[in-house]
Amino acid sequence: MQKKIINDPVYGFITIDHPLIFQIINHPWYQRLRRIHQMAMAQLVYPGAVHTRLHHSLGAYHLMRYALFELQQKGIEITDEEALGAKIAILLHDIGHGPYSHALEGVLLQNVHHEDLSLAFMEALNLQFEGKLDIAIAIFKDTYPKQFLHQLVSGQLDVDRMDYLTRDSFYSGVSEGTIAYDRILKMITVSQGNLMVEEKAIFSIEKFLVARRLMYWQVYLHKTVLVAEQMLQRIILRAKAINAQPASVNLAVIMALNKDSKIDEILDTFSLIDDFDVLTSIKNWMQHEDFVLSELSKRLINRQLLKIEFVNKIDLVAQTQKHKQSLQHKFDDTFIDYFVFEGTVKNTLYKTKDEKINILFKNGTVKDISQVDNALVHQHLATQEEKHYICYLK
Amino acid sequence: MQKKIINDPVYGFITIDHPLIFQIINHPWYQRLRRIHQMAMAQLVYPGAVHTRLHHSLGAYHLMRYALFELQQKGIEITDEEALGAKIAILLHDIGHGPYSHALEGVLLQNVHHEDLSLAFMEALNLQFEGKLDIAIAIFKDTYPKQFLHQLVSGQLDVDRMDYLTRDSFYSGVSEGTIAYDRILKMITVSQGNLMVEEKAIFSIEKFLVARRLMYWQVYLHKTVLVAEQMLQRIILRAKAINAQPASVNLAVIMALNKDSKIDEILDTFSLIDDFDVLTSIKNWMQHEDFVLSELSKRLINRQLLKIEFVNKIDLVAQTQKHKQSLQHKFDDTFIDYFVFEGTVKNTLYKTKDEKINILFKNGTVKDISQVDNALVHQHLATQEEKHYICYLK
Amino acid sequence: MQKKIINDPVYGFITIDHPLIFQIINHPWYQRLRRIHQMAMAQLVYPGAVHTRLHHSLGAYHLMRYALFELQQKGIEITDEEALGAKIAILLHDIGHGPYSHALEGVLLQNVHHEDLSLAFMEALNLQFEGKLDIAIAIFKDTYPKQFLHQLVSGQLDVDRMDYLTRDSFYSGVSEGTIAYDRILKMITVSQGNLMVEEKAIFSIEKFLVARRLMYWQVYLHKTVLVAEQMLQRIILRAKAINAQPASVNLAVIMALNKDSKIDEILDTFSLIDDFDVLTSIKNWMQHEDFVLSELSKRLINRQLLKIEFVNKIDLVAQTQKHKQSLQHKFDDTFIDYFVFEGTVKNTLYKTKDEKINILFKNGTVKDISQVDNALVHQHLATQEEKHYICYLK
Amino acid sequence: MQKKIINDPVYGFITIDHPLIFQIINHPWYQRLRRIHQMAMAQLVYPGAVHTRLHHSLGAYHLMRYALFELQQKGIEITDEEALGAKIAILLHDIGHGPYSHALEGVLLQNVHHEDLSLAFMEALNLQFEGKLDIAIAIFKDTYPKQFLHQLVSGQLDVDRMDYLTRDSFYSGVSEGTIAYDRILKMITVSQGNLMVEEKAIFSIEKFLVARRLMYWQVYLHKTVLVAEQMLQRIILRAKAINAQPASVNLAVIMALNKDSKIDEILDTFSLIDDFDVLTSIKNWMQHEDFVLSELSKRLINRQLLKIEFVNKIDLVAQTQKHKQSLQHKFDDTFIDYFVFEGTVKNTLYKTKDEKINILFKNGTVKDISQVDNALVHQHLATQEEKHYICYLK
Repeated sequence: MQKKIINDPVYGFITIDHPLIFQIINHPWYQRLRRIHQMAMAQLVYPGAVHTRLHHSLGAYHLMRYALFELQQKGIEITDEEALGAKIAILLHDIGHGPYSHALEGVLLQNVHHEDLSLAFMEALNLQFEGKLDIAIAIFKDTYPKQFLHQLVSGQLDVDRMDYLTRDSFYSGVSEGTIAYDRILKMITVSQGNLMVEEKAIFSIEKFLVARRLMYWQVYLHKTVLVAEQMLQRIILRAKAINAQPASVNLAVIMALNKDSKIDEILDTFSLIDDFDVLTSIKNWMQHEDFVLSELSKRLINRQLLKIEFVNKIDLVAQTQKHKQSLQHKFDDTFIDYFVFEGTVKNTLYKTKDEKINILFKNGTVKDISQVDNALVHQHLATQEEKHYICYLK
Repeated sequence: MQKKIINDPVYGFITIDHPLIFQIINHPWYQRLRRIHQMAMAQLVYPGAVHTRLHHSLGAYHLMRYALFELQQKGIEITDEEALGAKIAILLHDIGHGPYSHALEGVLLQNVHHEDLSLAFMEALNLQFEGKLDIAIAIFKDTYPKQFLHQLVSGQLDVDRMDYLTRDSFYSGVSEGTIAYDRILKMITVSQGNLMVEEKAIFSIEKFLVARRLMYWQVYLHKTVLVAEQMLQRIILRAKAINAQPASVNLAVIMALNKDSKIDEILDTFSLIDDFDVLTSIKNWMQHEDFVLSELSKRLINRQLLKIEFVNKIDLVAQTQKHKQSLQHKFDDTFIDYFVFEGTVKNTLYKTKDEKINILFKNGTVKDISQVDNALVHQHLATQEEKHYICYLK
Repeated sequence: MQKKIINDPVYGFITIDHPLIFQIINHPWYQRLRRIHQMAMAQLVYPGAVHTRLHHSLGAYHLMRYALFELQQKGIEITDEEALGAKIAILLHDIGHGPYSHALEGVLLQNVHHEDLSLAFMEALNLQFEGKLDIAIAIFKDTYPKQFLHQLVSGQLDVDRMDYLTRDSFYSGVSEGTIAYDRILKMITVSQGNLMVEEKAIFSIEKFLVARRLMYWQVYLHKTVLVAEQMLQRIILRAKAINAQPASVNLAVIMALNKDSKIDEILDTFSLIDDFDVLTSIKNWMQHEDFVLSELSKRLINRQLLKIEFVNKIDLVAQTQKHKQSLQHKFDDTFIDYFVFEGTVKNTLYKTKDEKINILFKNGTVKDISQVDNALVHQHLATQEEKHYICYLK
Repeated sequence: MQKKIINDPVYGFITIDHPLIFQIINHPWYQRLRRIHQMAMAQLVYPGAVHTRLHHSLGAYHLMRYALFELQQKGIEITDEEALGAKIAILLHDIGHGPYSHALEGVLLQNVHHEDLSLAFMEALNLQFEGKLDIAIAIFKDTYPKQFLHQLVSGQLDVDRMDYLTRDSFYSGVSEGTIAYDRILKMITVSQGNLMVEEKAIFSIEKFLVARRLMYWQVYLHKTVLVAEQMLQRIILRAKAINAQPASVNLAVIMALNKDSKIDEILDTFSLIDDFDVLTSIKNWMQHEDFVLSELSKRLINRQLLKIEFVNKIDLVAQTQKHKQSLQHKFDDTFIDYFVFEGTVKNTLYKTKDEKINILFKNGTVKDISQVDNALVHQHLATQEEKHYICYLK
């Protein structure tokens, strides 16, 4: 097969090296990811952050190739089929994301996680491609014996994170989020079937964790991004509540689903909706007769957002109450909840219980980074941090 | 005024330094530019090229600040009002662009150029801001006495071009399109009221012209981009021809306009449409009963484009005929023109008649770069180049 | 004055904006800094790290311009004379560095710190320039009333550190050492006469401290760099001990000085020596009859270094003893100390007592970053870290 | 073999993948290249341009690996031995460069080209490594049957040029010199035994040629660089003429050689001299009793260079005469030639006769780029350009 090359401002070139990868990329389901922004509403603060899920998953695929190559060079056995499986698994890891990904996850389709949808899409594709995705699916579900392949797809040091931190900091222009993905991937290894990093990687890992922390608070959970995404959710919830008609025929179908719909049955329709369906609907709703819907829609489209403040947990109830009262002379009570609300955001940098970044020392011992002497991470980075916010109309 | 800073991956930070600039940026009309891609369908080839007109015009504004600062440092008199005017003029130079900018220019609104719409928007804003845009408008229209200010907005070496070449090459990952905007802007000067560059800039200017040429043929006029934009146009034309209903209420109004509508009357509605209205409509049309409309729509959305080939001019007619014939057993004659068509694209790098890049020599003489001995540009770069293409269904 | 522009791969352009700055840069004493490597022997590990003290101090000058501009924009009063003083102070802050800067500090000239030499040079230049450096010297010595100017030259957040971290990571290719100097400098301010950063800078400061920590352990105190610099010191000490003649006439004068020489008397000769004098002498000494001198010289020049290991403090004595014993059959006892030796390196990231990074909160309160809730720095970054090493011949 | 990785700010990492490569890099002869600046005196204009021949040849080796990999991926047969040979050939292509490379080529050793010395070094190494460099030498001498391997080492599109253009523009900060080495290397191929590029590379090749032209006139042949290198040559010539003693014992041997010395006999001594020997000697000569030698030495070290002007050829003699006359009252006639002199520099971008950049068209035909329709190169880039300069004391 003639290799295909895709330009990428982040990595230079991404090489498509297998016909099946090429076919998957060309599939309409995959092409849909062109129309889902990687960072939802973050572009309202960082105008450069308009890159797509398609680009991110191509990037993660590129890093997977790099990682597999490095491991093979170190003598870790990975067959061609396994390499292909791992590359497909990462290429498709986000294919289940819907419009505005995390921002509307669980809102458009209640209680449905994008990982489940990704898996459903993979299984449907596996039928179409006559079983060629078996290994990819096993790796994705972590049922494949060589667990490190799954850990490359999903784990503390997976190529998903490496790409999104790298790409999101690149496109947003927040250069402090840059991580040394190339250096880290040169220092990964496999021991006792698990992915780990060599001892000399400790500083790079710390840097990676600190960069991630910074990206969370400075970008992903930026106040303005938070409030915009909260407004986006409330627009959809309001539209559902009043049965407002969306601009898109397929979004109409999805919004009309009841809770008990099975994933398999909705896959075809779901594969047709993306950010464009939602945003165009909101644009139409700017002229809707329902005050809540039109007001929130106009404010989101025109970037005239609600106010947002971080407050101490103890003040949350009182503050919310105060802002609600100040609107009571103007609005119906049922309206007020759309314009004054509170919330909490959390960022756990490194959960010591659930996940691990194993360090392989030269003498063969393995320690989690949180157990390493002198490491930054064991004291502070592991603590969960949360912030409380209140949004209101002024 | 507290200065406002916007992150930009290209320049680092963009500083908003005046309340009026801030107000204009926050105006819904300006915010609409967030929803118009700078490079229309180029993202089908270069997945990173998803940046917006808003980002481009902020970038051009940033370069204008830089240029004005450099000129002032060289003793060129520019008052605060003039500087503000020039900054507003460039900030708004693209505000008249509609959905998919050049790709649908003259298609959605027949015979209307985006510059005329930009001017109409500026004049409407001038009313809202009580005359504060007078100088900006004069500079934009080239009626302001200090002509070099207009030349910075629109000319061979304007900051518009500098930003779009820089930004488009950055986002597409075509690093060869990089130009030395910072170096060139350090070498501009004004003599006899006109913008020119110092003698030592000659190599940088040549590099600039060569980079621009490369970007045209490699990116803007890339075959795949061409065919996708041609298909986009034909979708809109077909929808108009058969009165297909778009998803967006505002796009519906615009598409229903007759030729004689005056710009002023349509401004409000036009200010509400963008790429999202068009693309979501196309997505709805994938299920339209008209074969031409649904087929083209499906092909564009799923990136299953028509074939395209560059051919010699002499072969154009015969080739087109051949492809049309091969479809005649399948399709109605009236359909075939939507699936087989020819076209010509041109790139004139440097039009020696109309525009000039004046070089100011140390001895005070001024020459156009096409007259400079030993320069690359005078022989070849000035020749108009054109390519002929044919698109067809296979 | 026509401004002069210097190309810099790190910042793009450095602008020389005052005739006095221009004259100082052209002074032979300043030009000497071209011949002193910024990172001494680090190039043996990082071949790109060959940049010079001249380039670093030009870079720090550039950041000082940037910092002063930002402070002035925020309404902090800084007169033209003060700005010039601060720029000269940073330009000259390293002018007292001798050959291989820190690596030979206190070895070539016993007990003399480069800061004292820098001050002596500044005072001598002040005579030559007829008092025009008065303010610069006051700022450098911290006797100038506006203390924040000194803090920009020398303090936890000075432009010296910002440039050397930025430049050293750039040239060494250790991209993880990158700091957001531009962002931090946009967030500095002055309150109660002291330099501080705005609240929103907390994450950037943490990133800065972590990057600095990484650069220390990964680059400046890299094992191979350590052993090479230790060997360099021992070569000079041996040459002094046996009165070996250096290649350079001026280095000969410096090496022959006795301890009681006064700085002022040696300034002229000191201003003539640099890395080249030392390295060429070592190259001549490769053929010296003294075994210790020639052996160490050959090993350093040919990059055949002694072995080095980090060991636990408790094992230091025993290990050193072991390696010494293994050489006793080969070498004279007086030789062995040149080939087997131990040492300790320390990196204190942030000394909470002596220095401060003050954070100015929106409500007007000021806290040191080590006192900020949830900051990384207060727990761990403030702890002094040290490592013990042993070097030996194998 | 455990792969070794070297940090490089230009390419990220350079991987050493074979024990023999590792041994060659560690050889004292190769380590000497650490002490030869890649760009001689260019750092007097571009202070960042202090990188070394060692770094450049490691970089060229890296690009060779990349090129060989791409060719192998396209099905071009290259055995492991051939790949190793090509990598060694490029690693050692500059090992024969002496102090200040081109600037003193033919001056220190009359009539000796660095390529001949490189070959002599390779042959000497081949003896030490027991014939393991046979293929490398054949490739270097162009006696190896697969000619494209030689063309990768030395030709219009060799990896030597690609690295030096890339690296020199990187370190000097002249970003306009950037070439798309990665893109070009993805488009090389081999046809009929010769290296060529695919049709789609035409724009990249043009960009490469224009970038090279710019680097020549803006950097390599920059006026200030020219005059400094001319002064450097005259210092050595004067020192030879009056038998001035250099600081370095090995340089003394080389400078005392007579014309008839054979390369083989001088190799050992030549392998011991580098920029440091020359510059330290010049520093000593600042105090030499010979006026010409000390004056030129002081001026070069202190960067107080002679004046230089580009003049028309026709004015060259008269101008030189004028400047000589103006010094006749001050200086002895024999001195004047050291302080007033003329010269000519040439840059032929692309010599159509001798060298070729073959373009392989999709239909299988091969054309030199100078024969391609619409290419920039065939008209102008092929013309030899020359400039005449005069240097004088003011």
